[in-house]
This record gives sequence, structure tokens and C-alpha cells, in this order.
Amino acid sequence: MRIDSVEFFYAAMPEVTLEADGSQDALLVRVSGEDGSVGWGECEASPLTSIAAFVTPRSHGVCQPVSASVIGERVSDPKDILRLSQLVARNSMDLLQAAHTWSGVEIALWDLLGRKLEQPVWKLLGYQRNFAKVPYASMLMGDTPQSTLERARDARAKGFRAVKFGWGNYGTADVQDDADHVAAAREGLGPDADLLIDAGQIWGDNVELAIARIPALQKAGATWLEEPFFAHAFKAYAELAKVSGGVGLAGGEGAHTEHMAMNLIDFGSVKFIQVDSARIGGIGPSKIVAEHAVRNDATYVNHTFTSHLALSASMQAFVGLENHRICEYPVEPKSVAWDLSVEHIEVDANGEITAPDAPGLGIQIDEQALLPYLREVEIKIDGQLAYESTVLDTATRVGH
Amino acid sequence: MRIDSVEFFYAAMPEVTLEADGSQDALLVRVSGEDGSVGWGECEASPLTSIAAFVTPRSHGVCQPVSASVIGERVSDPKDILRLSQLVARNSMDLLQAAHTWSGVEIALWDLLGRKLEQPVWKLLGYQRNFAKVPYASMLMGDTPQSTLERARDARAKGFRAVKFGWGNYGTADVQDDADHVAAAREGLGPDADLLIDAGQIWGDNVELAIARIPALQKAGATWLEEPFFAHAFKAYAELAKVSGGVGLAGGEGAHTEHMAMNLIDFGSVKFIQVDSARIGGIGPSKIVAEHAVRNDATYVNHTFTSHLALSASMQAFVGLENHRICEYPVEPKSVAWDLSVEHIEVDANGEITAPDAPGLGIQIDEQALLPYLREVEIKIDGQLAYESTVLDTATRVGH
Repeated sequence: MRIDSVEFFYAAMPEVTLEADGSQDALLVRVSGEDGSVGWGECEASPLTSIAAFVTPRSHGVCQPVSASVIGERVSDPKDILRLSQLVARNSMDLLQAAHTWSGVEIALWDLLGRKLEQPVWKLLGYQRNFAKVPYASMLMGDTPQSTLERARDARAKGFRAVKFGWGNYGTADVQDDADHVAAAREGLGPDADLLIDAGQIWGDNVELAIARIPALQKAGATWLEEPFFAHAFKAYAELAKVSGGVGLAGGEGAHTEHMAMNLIDFGSVKFIQVDSARIGGIGPSKIVAEHAVRNDATYVNHTFTSHLALSASMQAFVGLENHRICEYPVEPKSVAWDLSVEHIEVDANGEITAPDAPGLGIQIDEQALLPYLREVEIKIDGQLAYESTVLDTATRVGH
Repeated sequence: MRIDSVEFFYAAMPEVTLEADGSQDALLVRVSGEDGSVGWGECEASPLTSIAAFVTPRSHGVCQPVSASVIGERVSDPKDILRLSQLVARNSMDLLQAAHTWSGVEIALWDLLGRKLEQPVWKLLGYQRNFAKVPYASMLMGDTPQSTLERARDARAKGFRAVKFGWGNYGTADVQDDADHVAAAREGLGPDADLLIDAGQIWGDNVELAIARIPALQKAGATWLEEPFFAHAFKAYAELAKVSGGVGLAGGEGAHTEHMAMNLIDFGSVKFIQVDSARIGGIGPSKIVAEHAVRNDATYVNHTFTSHLALSASMQAFVGLENHRICEYPVEPKSVAWDLSVEHIEVDANGEITAPDAPGLGIQIDEQALLPYLREVEIKIDGQLAYESTVLDTATRVGH
């Protein structure tokens, strides 16, 4: 089947704040085949920049827009998606943003193919089973240890078996203050829940600053310390891993190729590899990283902070791995991220979530609900239209 | 001095082809201070995408446009440029293209600062001497070994002491065919010139395909084999390095952070680290990589395929390193890349080039000559202008 069109839909909250909350906007991708079949995907993040990488004039043979490797190509099998990924890697080698743009397109192609073949994507990836995952609640550290404690209690009361705290002042305040927050979080969670701490790259590549925080994390029995360093600072990761004892290092959300994520396991010694399928180049490379994690005694975890379309896409690569249990789950997303899909992946009575068994990604876009969030983009070069947002024709699509 | 404006100038040949020739377009950056002082830089590549990363609406606190970390900030010392680099790394953490956009702005800030302080940038970086470099001519492999031989002779006749061959069919044809080309190149060069071979990532992460080419490279006494693999495939690099004998591996042009380039030395065992200052985040991170190369027995080489503004910028980080001699030099750039500057860095009678000793980068932009190449970009979001190209006011600037 020939790919006839790729359309982008840039949705955002009326006001986008400086919160570290990635659910404030979304860039949806709709791919249409010549027979009218459709698939949806999502890119993470910076919608305008990712659109530009699709439509930009070429700079030379290996700095072509992503569109050059997609429009008019044929897809009828998972191998075709891999082939297009290789085309993009070649033709857009020098276009840095291409990985983020291609991710949303790749995800949409899997959705399209799954719907076409009437299979969930995880089956097309070769998995036989769809194991439930344990979602963790992700929250900011409180302003005081007492407020951190209360947030922890609150998350447990809501049924979460794993909770992640981070950002806020963590890592920038003094070591004792950070230790007090970690201890308070454990107290609020009780002894059984997984406690995860996210440093948000705060220590750059300074290993000493990170080492100083390890004793408090060990005392509180933290499962992981996430992103202590810059995404590429593998040496710092490896040095810290030598002394972090039972606290595993986590990282990888910034990976924009499968090799970058695998390097973090191989050279950075991370124990939890966190992959954002909407950045790494889609579901195919995510699966490659999951296989690498299995072979190297690391645990695969999705990174997802936007919609349930992105969540379903992020889960596909590891739903078949029974022992890779922890799953990122956007607990309090902004309304745009919730409203844009008809179905949602809800936390069940066991505090678990399960990826859809329906064909493709199993998530329908609610085009009517999406409308008020849409932002129109127009790009002209030398007065000629290079890009214009598609107007969603919801009149004919309601109930579709 | 407060940074009052950052303007982009997108210049391109009337026709941009699929050649692997990066000189077909350029994105120049002009930074202006509150006192009217000006500096110029250049981003590599995909001008529209890099402009978008400067003006895009923010997605959240760590996915802000590059502009958020620049406009209104104060710069009076090299430390201020480092501070802004750190700001961009933080505020645009999740915006992949930010590194390429920031590179051009950072270079312009060094140019501005150098002009202001009446020092060449290399002195501001702490170098005392400006050592000449040996430029290599970069050319495509011929269609036949005979044509490769003739190209090699031609380059030597023009005075080049080092010549790089690559792309074309190299690496995709059979091993013997590749070997014939390499032998022909050596024959054409004679025994004394440096022979460099560029595989352009052709083998992905397949180490066997690369190993099969090593004997011919050894026999021809090649100085380096460049980019045998994907930019992030460090493991493949390291495996190949174990058996490449006297042929050093080269790579790094895709590095968009200093850590990524240093990783290629530390984990990929490359002997020649090729840094494009217009991609890695500018001159500051380039200098950090150069220092790392010195400490780790690797040789620093610039990657430059565009204008002489970019060439001067690329040279600053290593002009003070006497033993790091080889330098990439755009031998037959397209007219846009040549015309846009008043000064050029010419090859002297010894077959060497030297970075300017004039303040800043020592390269004036020829605004009048630039005019016919300029492309106008306009971006609107919800009908509001988000970006519009600056019109160069050459009437008042001629002779400036």
C-alpha cells in the first residue's frame, strides 16, 4: 500500500507554562494509505520544529526533509517500516530533528499496519502475550519534606504501587535537605511501594554531587535514581553506578537512536533504560533496545508524559516482557492530552495497566474533542506555501 | 552588554541537488548588542528547521525555544557564553534541533566578543600561537579506479598534501572493487601525501563489512578510515579499532554535544575526532573536545563543508595545537559559500592554511554579495507572525 499523505495536528493548552509537564502540547500525525486506511502517531516534542523537519527544503543529499523518505513509499509489512527507518537515517543523516519527526510517522505506520492486518502492534512485533504493567505516579518533590510525605501518602491512597519524585529543588538544595525529602517520601509510601527518584540531569557530569546523595537513597531503599547527568555523559553514569549499590541508575529518555540508548546500558551501566518511542525513532528501535536490555540484565521502561496514544505506542515494545514491570503513566495530564483520544488506558483494581488488544495501537483519536486545542501553522518560503495545517473535517468524521 | 537581537539569514543556491555537498546552502546568524556591536555565526544545516527551533512556542519548562536563553541576556566575557550554553542545555533539553541552532548563535557571540575586545577568538580561548594547518582536499571516489587515480593526481598538482576520497560507490561495491579504488588513489597521490578514506556511515553497525576493507587501506598506508558506522555505534567503532592496525578511525561530525564527541574517543577508540563547531554547540564545546583529544592521544580535526566564516569558526578550537595538523577545507564550494564572505582563508605556497589573526573570527560578511542567495522565510501560528526574515539593508551597510 502506497503512503499518500502525512498530516500533522499541533494541539496545545491555551496557556503553556514553564512547568516540567510535557502534556501541555502534542503533535499528532495522521498517515493515510492509497486505499483510504489511516494510522495515528505522536511526536515528542516542539511541534513547530518537528513539522519544519518534515517540510524543510533539502540542504544536500543526506540532509533531506523527512517527507522525502516517506511520501509515495509502500508499506505492507513490518519490514517495510524498518526499510523506511533506514531511508530516513540515510537521507536525513544531518538533520538532527528528523528523529523526533520520524518517530511520530513511524508510530502512525505501525498503527495503520496493525489496523490493516487486524492485529495489535505488539503481535506484529512478535510478542505472544500482553503482560500487565505497574504504572508509577510521577510527581514533583514538595516544597517541604512534610508536603513530599503527604504527596506520597496521597499517591498510595490512589492505589499506586510505585511513585516517582523529582525536579522541584531536588539536587540543588543541600545534601541533608535532599535526604530529608527522600526519607519523607519513603515514610509516606510505606515499606512496600517502589520509590523512584528523578534528578532531571541536575548534576551535569559532576559525579561527586551525585555520590553525596546515594546514602539517603540507599537508606530509603530507592529502586532507581533517574537522570543524574546529561543524556550523553556515559562516563559519569558508569562511575556513579560503581558506588550506587542497590540503587539502580535509570536514564535514556533523551535517546534519539537505538544505539544511543544501548550505549547507556553498555557504557553507562544503567539498570533501567527509559525509552520514549516518540523520540527514539518510533516503535521499531524501541523494540531493539528492549531486546538489548533483556540480553544485558537491564530493565526496559517506557518514557511517556503526554497522551494515551503515546502511552499505547510506548508500551508496545515491552508488553511481552513479563519481568519488566514498571511503566511510566501520565497521572495528571493536562486536558489536551486526555481529551484527544476516545479510549484511555485506565489503572485497574490491582494498580496495573494493560496495553490495548485491539488492532493497531487500539486508541481512536477524538477529532471533535481535539478541535478546540488545534493550532494552525503556516510556513512560506520566498512567498510560496511550504506548509499549511490540515483543517480537520469533523463533520464527516464524527463517529468514525 | 545586553544581546538585543538575533537574526537569521538563509542563503542557498538556486538549485539544491542531491549531491553530498554541504556548501549548497547556509544559515548565517547575526547577533547585535545594545551598543550596536555585531557578530556573525553559521548553523549547519537545514536552515528552516534551525530557525524553527529558535522561534517555536515552548512545549514546557525544558522544551523552550533557543531564543528564551539568549535574547536580553548579558555577554561581556567568555564565561558568559559558557553560561548561556548551560542555559540552552537546560531550557531546551527536549528540543533536539536546539544544538544546531545554538551553534550558530554561540559562534556569533564569540565573533562579537572578539571584535569588542579586539582579540582573535583563539586568544580568548587561551591559545598563545596560531599554528598553520594542512588542508586536505575532499573528493568523491571516481566511477572507475582510473578516474580516482586522475583525481588524486589533480589534487596533488594543485598543491594538496592530503586528500580525502569517499562516498560514491565506496563500501557498497565488492571488496576488491573498493580495494582497487584505494590502491589507485594511493598511486595517484604518490607515496608522501596523506590518504584519507570516508565511508559515510555506509556499513551501519556491521563490523564485518568494515573489517573486509582494512587490508587494502593498510596496504595503501591510509591515515584514516572515516565514519565506517552510524554516529552512535560506538561498540562497532571499538571492535573495528582493535583490528585496524595503522589505519586510525575517524568520526564525530554528527556530535551535537561535547560528551557525544568525547564518548567516540573514550568508547569508540577513534584516533581522529572530527568536530563541526556549527553542530556541536559552537566553539566552546569544540575546545573542550580538543582538550580531551590532547589528554587521550587522539587528534582533533575540524569538520567544515560550507563557508569561510564556518571554516574560521571551526579552526579556532585547535589552532593552538601544533601537532594536530590536518584540517578539512572546502576545496570546491558552491558559489554561495564562497561569495558570502569578503575574506577567504587561502592555501599558501606550502600547501597550508592559517586562521585569521584579526579580531573575532576575522571574516566579514559580504552583505551585497549575499543578497541574491537569500531566501525569505515566514512562519505564522494561528494567523500571528512567529518569524519573518530580516531584510538586509545593504544600502546603509556597503563598505561597513
